[in-house]
Amino acid sequence: MAKKIQTAITPTRTEDYSEWYQQVVRASDMAEHSPVRGCMVIKPWGYALWENIQRSLDDMFKETGVTNAYFPLFIPLSFLEKEAEHVEGFAKECAVVTHHRLEQGPEGGLVPAGKLAEPLVVRPTSETIIGDSFSRWVSSYRDLPLLINQWCNVVRWEMRTRIFLRTSEFLWQEGHTVHATAEEAIARTGQMLDIYADLAEEYLAVPVIRGRKTPSERFPGAVDTLCIEAMMQDRKALQAGTSHFLGQNFATASGIKFQNAQEAEEYAWTTSWGASTRLIGGLIMTHGDDDGIIMPPRVAPSHVVLLPIARKAEERAAVMEYTENLARALRDTWYHHTRLRVEIDDRDIGGARGWEWIKKGIPLRVEIGPRDIAANSVFVARRDKPHREKTSVRRDQFVSGITALLDDIQKNLFSRAADYRKAHTVTIDDRDGFYAFFTPENAEKPEIHGGFVRAHWCESAECEAKIKEDLQVTIRCIPFDSPDEDGRCICCGKPSPRRVIFAKAY
Amino acid sequence: MAKKIQTAITPTRTEDYSEWYQQVVRASDMAEHSPVRGCMVIKPWGYALWENIQRSLDDMFKETGVTNAYFPLFIPLSFLEKEAEHVEGFAKECAVVTHHRLEQGPEGGLVPAGKLAEPLVVRPTSETIIGDSFSRWVSSYRDLPLLINQWCNVVRWEMRTRIFLRTSEFLWQEGHTVHATAEEAIARTGQMLDIYADLAEEYLAVPVIRGRKTPSERFPGAVDTLCIEAMMQDRKALQAGTSHFLGQNFATASGIKFQNAQEAEEYAWTTSWGASTRLIGGLIMTHGDDDGIIMPPRVAPSHVVLLPIARKAEERAAVMEYTENLARALRDTWYHHTRLRVEIDDRDIGGARGWEWIKKGIPLRVEIGPRDIAANSVFVARRDKPHREKTSVRRDQFVSGITALLDDIQKNLFSRAADYRKAHTVTIDDRDGFYAFFTPENAEKPEIHGGFVRAHWCESAECEAKIKEDLQVTIRCIPFDSPDEDGRCICCGKPSPRRVIFAKAY
Repeated sequence: MAKKIQTAITPTRTEDYSEWYQQVVRASDMAEHSPVRGCMVIKPWGYALWENIQRSLDDMFKETGVTNAYFPLFIPLSFLEKEAEHVEGFAKECAVVTHHRLEQGPEGGLVPAGKLAEPLVVRPTSETIIGDSFSRWVSSYRDLPLLINQWCNVVRWEMRTRIFLRTSEFLWQEGHTVHATAEEAIARTGQMLDIYADLAEEYLAVPVIRGRKTPSERFPGAVDTLCIEAMMQDRKALQAGTSHFLGQNFATASGIKFQNAQEAEEYAWTTSWGASTRLIGGLIMTHGDDDGIIMPPRVAPSHVVLLPIARKAEERAAVMEYTENLARALRDTWYHHTRLRVEIDDRDIGGARGWEWIKKGIPLRVEIGPRDIAANSVFVARRDKPHREKTSVRRDQFVSGITALLDDIQKNLFSRAADYRKAHTVTIDDRDGFYAFFTPENAEKPEIHGGFVRAHWCESAECEAKIKEDLQVTIRCIPFDSPDEDGRCICCGKPSPRRVIFAKAY
Repeated sequence: MAKKIQTAITPTRTEDYSEWYQQVVRASDMAEHSPVRGCMVIKPWGYALWENIQRSLDDMFKETGVTNAYFPLFIPLSFLEKEAEHVEGFAKECAVVTHHRLEQGPEGGLVPAGKLAEPLVVRPTSETIIGDSFSRWVSSYRDLPLLINQWCNVVRWEMRTRIFLRTSEFLWQEGHTVHATAEEAIARTGQMLDIYADLAEEYLAVPVIRGRKTPSERFPGAVDTLCIEAMMQDRKALQAGTSHFLGQNFATASGIKFQNAQEAEEYAWTTSWGASTRLIGGLIMTHGDDDGIIMPPRVAPSHVVLLPIARKAEERAAVMEYTENLARALRDTWYHHTRLRVEIDDRDIGGARGWEWIKKGIPLRVEIGPRDIAANSVFVARRDKPHREKTSVRRDQFVSGITALLDDIQKNLFSRAADYRKAHTVTIDDRDGFYAFFTPENAEKPEIHGGFVRAHWCESAECEAKIKEDLQVTIRCIPFDSPDEDGRCICCGKPSPRRVIFAKAY
């Protein structure tokens, strides 16, 4: 009988993936549910990860000429109504402010008072309120392109929420650009998608597929929606960033016009693009294991924790001195434009100390005891390896080699995820095989199914809808690297020009 | 007859200070009013300033062990009601969410639907919602101190708004800490006030008075409120940051309890402290002149603009090459832990180009023409000097001396402001003199009055209220550096232990 390996997270991924996720969020101390319906509290360890993601993205945006600005939280109802598809897409799930003060009610408690003439919607996205400013900022082709980004909170009222993945309030950035030509706006849409893909792959170590959404999955009001899609460890897809070419739809709705070089007035072409705290959920579900989260070094809140071990009181001073000395040397070390972030944990709480850092996913744990000091070495554990695998390394070698070690962890996480995705992505050409692939082997664990399928699709909304209804499977994207190839639609058998990616999704 | 000097801003400060402020905000392109009542749009030049303020403060916070986190935008009404003084202070001006979707109304337009069982208040400040989390995070003295900060937006419904100074929505940070003892919480309250004072003086070049609010001016629910107060150029005071010792009031209201080392349960001691985009208004009113804003170099969105001048087409290539070369050399230069931020403005718009940068307040303008290139020199103008004062400097000398030059501008702005405050701060001991000091010389310009007064006060709320009613003058603070000194209350003549600062205020 196989001995069950002890894990820090109960249940494990295979036992109950969904509950495993919630337990990892809790055990890693990244976030918690709040008493406010559907809203989360992002705790310091989770927020530090978000700050690193923000900083990385923000730098990349600015390198392309984007600047940050800030627009109102509230959107007048009449603004939202300017674009018909847009309001249709967001009206069903928004927080509505109707009053501007509280006063004593007839039964003693406070009640809303000061009714507003026009209700205000808490922004679910800001195309319409930003479009209003842009209509004033743009008057000539000389004002273009206009490249603006905003970091903020948004609210989309959700009935079924899950921390980081789907919450009523979340943090994100939304970029909004204005261009003189469709070509330039389309190029910008692609450029920003590439930045999201770089963030995902280079920083989060999450491999993604770049592609285009089908018309039914587009952002409400967009002409074209590009996206990056990642595979989670339950083989479901997670959309990790989207970039929209809005054509002249929002420019027309908001009156964003400019005089061209020939002094004729034209409507401008706009784009918008966003990524959110959802990325954190994707990171957890890509790299987490049955011991907790694993932080990719490029965005880890901290890179390394030093764990001094002094069993006898008289050893303590020497161990602490050696530890603090090592911390200084490490903090002086640069790793990809930032100094190494180093924790010292000298709490006297026994084995719980190491496990806490394993659950939090810090890339490197370093134990330092009297024997290590005598040998001028340290005992190093990588979070991407089994937790008992620890190596004694000479101190100087550790310090000089730590950035290479972190890069190796980063690379290893990425290739593990890429291998996993490859192992669970198949090409299917027959309808029965397709249906079987998405049917769970075990009815009690509907989450365990095949993965991603590259299959042909006739481009009809009907086939797309039928598959969604039958299997809860959607077309995640039409990948950019999908070659033209004659085939037959997996659903109706009619001709198809290329394969698309089908999957269950978050 | 004196010739009127041409200024970029109309009206000037002496003609109409309040309108001058609005015009500087507009001319510097920092922000604009939005169509949403009381909300502002912070434009890129204003937001970049805010980003620099944020970065500076955030680094200072983190050096003291504070970490960032994020809490919900919405506060259930029942939470706000937990602390009686607190809800009293904020109920009259808050945005209330009552519905969670929109649907077609009987007359065709969308109307609020999905009424919430309990209204949600958009956070005016987060003591109560953060207190709820803290009550779960703290259980033992080992969990203390807990040092948390949040960067976010808050909403306080304002009827009379002014960009940056008083808006319904504004951006800020709010720090919240929990301690095992009153002493430690009191020390932290002072420590954070010192950080605000450092930010104001070292970064914003705004001299401030550190002190304590009178009971009637305290934060609703606080035991003690510390503040920094600055003098604007209309001699009114602006509160630029506050730090509150909350005693056990909010810990009791939210149930933040811990087990002490003796295993007895106690309520914890908390603090909160905040600074907001209001600082930008204070910066404008401290340093702005009749040509626009002047950006202190330590927080300037950009440090220097290069203005290539090529009157003939054939000169253009050489001038641009020289300019770009210089920009590279400057961008490689470090100034207080950041690289120099350099703009190149090669637009062909004549004299408007230079004036635009003057109005935006960039610390240094550098003109580069063929003659300068021939002499290997540049033509430099400092924003803190009259706009016609330009100096020819050898290129190498300019590059090697630019950080000293920026430091000199920073220092000059601070000393000008300190001199101004000194010139308009007086000690008054007689009631008639006090009343005369605060009475405008010209009834048509009520904004022009004396300034700050150091006067005695008997510590009664009645005298404080009487002066406020008679003169619209309040006690800005009881300064920390006010020595014990027997005196007579400026209002009632009764004994007073020390002088306080009286002023009109924003």
